[in-house]
Amino acid sequence: MKVGILGAGQLGRMLALAGHPLGLEFVFFDPAKDACAAVLGQHLQRPYSDQDALAEFARQVDVATTEFENVPAEALRVVSEHTPVYPPADAIATAQDRLLEKQMFQHLGIATPDFAAIDSHKAIQEFASQGPCIIKTRRFGYDGKGQSRVKSASDATAAWECLGELPLIGEQWIQFDREVSIIAVRSREGEIAFYPIAENEHRNGILAISQSRPNDPMQAKAEDYARRILEELQYVGTMGIEFFQRGDELLANEIAPRVHNTGHWTIEGAVTSQFENHLRAILGLPLGSTAARGYSLMINCIGTLPNTTDVLKIPGVHLHLYGKDPKPGRKIGHITFCAESAAAIKQHRETLNGLC
Amino acid sequence: MKVGILGAGQLGRMLALAGHPLGLEFVFFDPAKDACAAVLGQHLQRPYSDQDALAEFARQVDVATTEFENVPAEALRVVSEHTPVYPPADAIATAQDRLLEKQMFQHLGIATPDFAAIDSHKAIQEFASQGPCIIKTRRFGYDGKGQSRVKSASDATAAWECLGELPLIGEQWIQFDREVSIIAVRSREGEIAFYPIAENEHRNGILAISQSRPNDPMQAKAEDYARRILEELQYVGTMGIEFFQRGDELLANEIAPRVHNTGHWTIEGAVTSQFENHLRAILGLPLGSTAARGYSLMINCIGTLPNTTDVLKIPGVHLHLYGKDPKPGRKIGHITFCAESAAAIKQHRETLNGLC
Repeated sequence: MKVGILGAGQLGRMLALAGHPLGLEFVFFDPAKDACAAVLGQHLQRPYSDQDALAEFARQVDVATTEFENVPAEALRVVSEHTPVYPPADAIATAQDRLLEKQMFQHLGIATPDFAAIDSHKAIQEFASQGPCIIKTRRFGYDGKGQSRVKSASDATAAWECLGELPLIGEQWIQFDREVSIIAVRSREGEIAFYPIAENEHRNGILAISQSRPNDPMQAKAEDYARRILEELQYVGTMGIEFFQRGDELLANEIAPRVHNTGHWTIEGAVTSQFENHLRAILGLPLGSTAARGYSLMINCIGTLPNTTDVLKIPGVHLHLYGKDPKPGRKIGHITFCAESAAAIKQHRETLNGLC
Repeated sequence: MKVGILGAGQLGRMLALAGHPLGLEFVFFDPAKDACAAVLGQHLQRPYSDQDALAEFARQVDVATTEFENVPAEALRVVSEHTPVYPPADAIATAQDRLLEKQMFQHLGIATPDFAAIDSHKAIQEFASQGPCIIKTRRFGYDGKGQSRVKSASDATAAWECLGELPLIGEQWIQFDREVSIIAVRSREGEIAFYPIAENEHRNGILAISQSRPNDPMQAKAEDYARRILEELQYVGTMGIEFFQRGDELLANEIAPRVHNTGHWTIEGAVTSQFENHLRAILGLPLGSTAARGYSLMINCIGTLPNTTDVLKIPGVHLHLYGKDPKPGRKIGHITFCAESAAAIKQHRETLNGLC
């Protein structure tokens, strides 16, 4: 079986590493010359606007998927004329637009921070008058890009000047106890599975640390919300859903219609990784167990490579480098530490954090 | 860093799958057009006698290794003129010759079945007069090929007629309680690590099943013997050593100077796999923990592909297909089942065995 992946970054790379043992082959479509997944399959290096190349790509694979949510809708449409595409285009379209996404949460009875569509300087001022907020582009933001925090009148003007030409959403800036996420999977057959939630820390808008939280008291609520979303979207594949926790309330922040950085710990820390389960899901195979194997801590390597020897000399640490050139703010690898107890994680956390 | 691998079969494939996360790239040298590891790196498809191609291969990698023990000595010599080669050529030469191998065991005080060099029909008859034996070619045998069992005078004649033109060894046919193996690793820095031993079952001379045996009473003796061999050979890399157990005695059968089929369970069943540790060893990196994660059972898929859905629907089962065409007697994949207890392994053993 041949799997086509739109995008050939680290997520495509980890999908392929999970898929080769299942006997799968991979074709990547990515305009980047140095796409880091390319070494694990065939690479069609063409722009997403090249419809002929997309059709050629689609015809040679049994199923297609994406590794990032900003694939142009038109490219997905072309591919889906020739081969099944999962997750479905509608799900990706919803996730691409922060306003549609928040409206879906609302429609499904899932709490969110307050939000409003923003189409003028005045709209920012009005929304900000209710309290501090963040103005975000509705589309194409990631890792903290395309966002502006608004606490004052001058912030509102700056946000409008910076982002005003794009469709925007305003989101209430909320105090929260912690950020958590759930990785959920739904297969072509409708089978659903959830991983234990992870507790996450962002720095400068980029995920820095995820820690698995098996048996967390918020697990049931996160699963309930995730199930509503998966079923609403008739989703197929792995999805990441981020929440803010305030008291015993989960406020949905966003969904990622793909394998997710807060699920990288599942490679060693769960019976079946999020990557393998994504592939099982889109191929209509039975999903693998999502049970945790002990406790896991994942730390992103951002901008600079860690010292390999320093990392590997710590028992229980696994290194994942993506084959990307280091650049400030760029995710170029991660390390995962697995242990038998949450206490062991706590004990090693500072040392591990110092490695990346 | 670029790693060169002589051979691009399933062992090379699993080495590459373990190495990409460490940021390594791979160049394979293999005369076979359809070599199954080729998809995970660059493939130089040339005969082992092509010295120019070997030199070109060697010059473009930082370190070279082998995935099978029958690489011609001359090919290893050429490669080692241009790049470091691990395991060392002498170790491979010893493992390539059953007589040298047995003589080394003897020299190191490691028990073996009785053996003798065989160079005539009469020598077979004499050796067989002490009891049932197996006549084997000293070189190039694997998976039960190049062997003939001798219990009678007519067997002796048949063995001589079949194999007599080659250098031979006679080995005593012994009754044993079980076959066990140990996977051992020694790094360029001299660091040594041992995995829990595995209990193995062969069928028609081909490994069928390996089961990890953490905390087995024979572990200490197997480690003692393995350490002697690693140090004698100044070995670098992963090695498999097979023993017959009789009472509390281990009789060394053979060594494999490479990652080994009886260590495939370490991919999911140990903290660090034998494949990753082989790469760490030859790169001079710290070795990873060899501790078991629970209990594991590995079953080879020989000749026919299992039904993927049937395999994947069993929780805790992992499928490894090698991308090879099915052919009678050919290893084309394996499945590994991991569980929290030896009892769970026992409970599932028959079902799992029926899948391959």
